[in-house]
Amino acid sequence: MDYRQAGVDLHGAAEAQRRIAERARTTFNPSVLSSIGTFGALFQPDFSSYREPVLVASTDGVGTKIHVAVAAGRHDTVGYDLVSHCINDILVQGATPLFFMDYVAVGRLDPGTVDAVVEGVARACREFGCPLIGGETAEMPGTYAPGDYDLAGFIVGVVERDRVLTGSRVREGDLLLALPSSGLHTNGYSLARKVLLEAMGRDVHSVLPTGETVAEALLAPHRCYLPALGPLLDAGRLRAMAHVTGGGIPGNLPRVLPAGLGACVRREAWTPPELFLLIQREGRIDEEEMFATFNMGVGMILVVAPEELGNVQRNLESRSEGSTLIGSVVAGAGVSFV
Amino acid sequence: MDYRQAGVDLHGAAEAQRRIAERARTTFNPSVLSSIGTFGALFQPDFSSYREPVLVASTDGVGTKIHVAVAAGRHDTVGYDLVSHCINDILVQGATPLFFMDYVAVGRLDPGTVDAVVEGVARACREFGCPLIGGETAEMPGTYAPGDYDLAGFIVGVVERDRVLTGSRVREGDLLLALPSSGLHTNGYSLARKVLLEAMGRDVHSVLPTGETVAEALLAPHRCYLPALGPLLDAGRLRAMAHVTGGGIPGNLPRVLPAGLGACVRREAWTPPELFLLIQREGRIDEEEMFATFNMGVGMILVVAPEELGNVQRNLESRSEGSTLIGSVVAGAGVSFV
Repeated sequence: MDYRQAGVDLHGAAEAQRRIAERARTTFNPSVLSSIGTFGALFQPDFSSYREPVLVASTDGVGTKIHVAVAAGRHDTVGYDLVSHCINDILVQGATPLFFMDYVAVGRLDPGTVDAVVEGVARACREFGCPLIGGETAEMPGTYAPGDYDLAGFIVGVVERDRVLTGSRVREGDLLLALPSSGLHTNGYSLARKVLLEAMGRDVHSVLPTGETVAEALLAPHRCYLPALGPLLDAGRLRAMAHVTGGGIPGNLPRVLPAGLGACVRREAWTPPELFLLIQREGRIDEEEMFATFNMGVGMILVVAPEELGNVQRNLESRSEGSTLIGSVVAGAGVSFV
Repeated sequence: MDYRQAGVDLHGAAEAQRRIAERARTTFNPSVLSSIGTFGALFQPDFSSYREPVLVASTDGVGTKIHVAVAAGRHDTVGYDLVSHCINDILVQGATPLFFMDYVAVGRLDPGTVDAVVEGVARACREFGCPLIGGETAEMPGTYAPGDYDLAGFIVGVVERDRVLTGSRVREGDLLLALPSSGLHTNGYSLARKVLLEAMGRDVHSVLPTGETVAEALLAPHRCYLPALGPLLDAGRLRAMAHVTGGGIPGNLPRVLPAGLGACVRREAWTPPELFLLIQREGRIDEEEMFATFNMGVGMILVVAPEELGNVQRNLESRSEGSTLIGSVVAGAGVSFV
């Protein structure tokens, strides 16, 4: 099989094409009809256990986190970020992944870079059981500088219609349970780079007071919450979930609250990891801007009925997943920090 | 509904966000569960008429055609190209579209440009009955120059499993029926720009001997073959189809021929449109390179059993769709031009 048969149209470098195909193949499951694919990728879903399957689709990029990867010369993490981000975006609606596709656009095709990017995508796809069924690698000199590139991902998942999480079941008094992030995830990179690289005059290889290099700190992989939350979804124990991406908690939590309800979040419930505090201190950024830009250590928020809290916490603890109660749903709108 | 509720995460400009949402909404059909969407877009497919539905997915960009759009300051055509290209890529496997998503990455968010790009996407989505259920607009200063952007599309369609076109049914002696392209579609733009803009010293507003400006000639929309071919697919009258994209006829037709079979194409069967001949003449490009780079006037090739040729031609003629017999399937490999 060449990668075209997995739906990919790679201009140039046959060797890169062969390696990408191999990477993709490691992610396949029996639903991928790879042997008969050509222009498009074929996927035969097994919906036999669904009464009313609803497809949930999302697309995203990793933003300027790519600039850190380019500066550090490390290209095998951004693809992992991309897959994690996309899975989280459909997970919060109750969906689990069916398949993934990627779009990689480069200024000049460097087979090593593209291979590393796709390996990052494939690693996450294997880890989370989401086949990479195709993609496109476009060489666009004039749009991208040599060495520079962009990356977009597309995911399709499925959820039973009456299990779609929409926020409509959220009630006043529901509790907010935070799951820790694993770093900046994929948001706030323009500001983080400005502070850590420009204002502090560091380069990506400098060691931060946290003991990591700037590159290590900023390239920490975006955490995928499917392993932690999949079992809870199956049990129908969650009223809503918010993936804390661009806009932080105030930009994302209200997206899953019905009209007339807001959130009250206790700032002392958790201490943001040192990296966020360092950026805040060195950049002299006020707390409001920090919370509107970064996840501040909270990557996912679960909205849970009070009577379910014990069950949900025990479920998470049984799989060694940490969580912190950070607030509750209140009458009003938006997010108030107290 | 804001566009986020259609699965879109637009950083910046609330007004642009509102307009994009409006554009997207014009493409919706009852399968789009827009009212309950938040992080991901929800689509409930109606598979009741399928025994074994197979999803066919594809992703693509429009390559350096974007540079012509930027130079001409005309941004409402590339989105149309993108949708057409993606639909054609799944059509050749026998699939019809379910839904579409777009990724637009810009250097600096110019609401007018993004709105025009998305309107092009939405126009094609309306025309071909393929809802635009979500997308991402990413602002990435440092990757894209101000005014520059990139665009990727993602499509999911469906086909009955025993109707998937794979090329396995192609036999020696089958006939090749060409459908005309509407210009360069989305391939060969680096070479076309080099010849028309650099070698000929023209700008995009210069009038060509064909009577059009360079911009008009190069921005001619990529033709979508769904209206012409949908009825033929339903009737099961085609053995295979090849979408003539990057690599031209020799790069794409063999992708749908089984091992041991090649194609014999009669060069005199059609005359490539003047634009191709102009590029060839002015660029002093040999014919082999022209055919390996451009579609040369043939956007889609149907592989038809000899006994079906009359039926297929009558079907196309009844809807005023032109077609030309350009060759046949022969023992061997690859494409020979005679």
